[in-house]
Amino acid sequence: MSEDKKTELGQLGEFGLIQHLTDKITLKHDTTIKGVGDDAAVLSYKNKETVVTTDLLLEGIHFDLTYTPLKHLGYKAVAVNVSDVYAMNAAPKHITVSLGISSKMSVEALDELYDGIYAACDYYNVDLVGGDTTTSLTGLTISVTAIGEGEKDKLTYRNGAKPHDLICVSGDLGGAYMGLQLLEREKRVFQGNPEAQPDLSGYDYILSRQLKPEARKEIPALLNTIGVVPTSMIDISDGLSSEIMHICKQSNTGCRLYENKIPVDPTTAMLADEMGINPTVTALNGGEDYELLFTISQSDYEKFKDVGDVNIYIIGHITEETKGTYLVTNADQEVELQAQGWNPIKKDD
Amino acid sequence: MSEDKKTELGQLGEFGLIQHLTDKITLKHDTTIKGVGDDAAVLSYKNKETVVTTDLLLEGIHFDLTYTPLKHLGYKAVAVNVSDVYAMNAAPKHITVSLGISSKMSVEALDELYDGIYAACDYYNVDLVGGDTTTSLTGLTISVTAIGEGEKDKLTYRNGAKPHDLICVSGDLGGAYMGLQLLEREKRVFQGNPEAQPDLSGYDYILSRQLKPEARKEIPALLNTIGVVPTSMIDISDGLSSEIMHICKQSNTGCRLYENKIPVDPTTAMLADEMGINPTVTALNGGEDYELLFTISQSDYEKFKDVGDVNIYIIGHITEETKGTYLVTNADQEVELQAQGWNPIKKDD
Repeated sequence: MSEDKKTELGQLGEFGLIQHLTDKITLKHDTTIKGVGDDAAVLSYKNKETVVTTDLLLEGIHFDLTYTPLKHLGYKAVAVNVSDVYAMNAAPKHITVSLGISSKMSVEALDELYDGIYAACDYYNVDLVGGDTTTSLTGLTISVTAIGEGEKDKLTYRNGAKPHDLICVSGDLGGAYMGLQLLEREKRVFQGNPEAQPDLSGYDYILSRQLKPEARKEIPALLNTIGVVPTSMIDISDGLSSEIMHICKQSNTGCRLYENKIPVDPTTAMLADEMGINPTVTALNGGEDYELLFTISQSDYEKFKDVGDVNIYIIGHITEETKGTYLVTNADQEVELQAQGWNPIKKDD
Repeated sequence: MSEDKKTELGQLGEFGLIQHLTDKITLKHDTTIKGVGDDAAVLSYKNKETVVTTDLLLEGIHFDLTYTPLKHLGYKAVAVNVSDVYAMNAAPKHITVSLGISSKMSVEALDELYDGIYAACDYYNVDLVGGDTTTSLTGLTISVTAIGEGEKDKLTYRNGAKPHDLICVSGDLGGAYMGLQLLEREKRVFQGNPEAQPDLSGYDYILSRQLKPEARKEIPALLNTIGVVPTSMIDISDGLSSEIMHICKQSNTGCRLYENKIPVDPTTAMLADEMGINPTVTALNGGEDYELLFTISQSDYEKFKDVGDVNIYIIGHITEETKGTYLVTNADQEVELQAQGWNPIKKDD
């Protein structure tokens, strides 16, 4: 695509634009009876439970187009949504995408956004089956709904954790938050001196954690392979602290997390130190890592011994409710966990 | 609720706010395995097809809070969404509601919005099972997804109309558009003279068509009772002209609509005349009436003879594709239909 070409949305008109954007859809699932193009999509989930989740992403709140490539944004909008389906130990199959777009946006810019959406549809093996396209007077608005299927006796909720269960996380934490801090820092430098080049070298990992997070689709597959159904599961969108507190509250339990067990990537820790932020705080309160946090019975522990390339970290255990929800620090002190809210990505489901 | 009380959203915090808003939910369906409060909702649609549709409503584009009561807005957001499910000849069962809200909005204002949402959930017999709540830097953003169930051999698409089929509509058209014109006129009067009282007397019907439209849930029930499966169906959100053209395009047919058969309420016609608008144009291009437009085989015509209180209007017939899509005017002239797009409510599914 040429950077120079800018086709105004008005040139295509509404129906022309929708046709342009949806022409590239290839449907992958025979469960998709009817995709885009009617009043509603028709899906076939016989003999499985239907899982539904939705996210709303608003410009200026959830993303900043000054440093977020549109293709990455489209990808991320899908990834964060299917992440909620994996957190149910289910498989996403279909998504709808609604967009509120400024008339100033070009067709080519929208194509970039959709390139990211379609790339995510391929990676997560979901069909785009519907949506709503409208003009916006203000910024870009993206609403994604993911629909998937799960087996009744394998679905994992937030309310099944039991005392003595082990608390597991599927990867390192805090990276997405430090990626955001880095981007915001370089934006401020740029605003002070537009000649300045952003200094992002050596930070590829945390930048990708922020700009192109992946939902952990391998985890439900792994759990199925080794025959484990977690007693509870949630994805980490708001930060470890909030998420484990959701599990404890709904399961009527307490917990102990161990600071020295929480996985933090060296790049995350290095930049956090440089910025005067405690690396553990980035993991606890940072959010947007989209790793899966789950609890397992101790009797299932052995099954995780040989899981190949997949890293599963055991970071603590569930306790009786009366014991409260605490972090045990490296200095062996107990610090009560705090819930965060109104973080960049906030969700109620 | 006292008009004076204004509780700031920040006083509740994110999780407190979500709890406040969702505490009133009562689940009606045993197909709702899990509602609000986990990563995703879990639904059970055994032996039926799953139908999914979504709408995005943006302040300043789809609604104007200067004359739209929040309770009506909440109701309408649900009604226009379930309308798409009825247009598939299916039954809505579940909705998710995502909101982007300005921090300036009070808890009491949000309660009004939710009162409307819950009233619509009751009327349309759907469970609110999830959503996403986030701050918005700009106006109010509402994204609703409806999920429902239909029987495979009764689902109606846009592509099944056949030459000689009769074209039916479930109620009068153009009222919602004239209601909007009236509200906009009175808003301009008010802006010119803030002492002026709006002159809305005698226009209750068209105001309710605009502010509190109802989805035609009786129609799929009626069709089921009399044993008719329409050959195609769509709901009228963009105006009769666009909608019949969607059916004709997808069915590879033409059509003839008869101006003297198109139902227009006297109030609609009177105000249209007063404003110098052709009443038929309000029906063809106005939109937002949310009546159902459907086609039936002539052999099913007799079954509509005794349908009690429900008015079904036969407004034309389907033709071969080569005959084109035309309106036959009262003066017996054929005028080619024009598709509208980028209307207040625009949809691609």
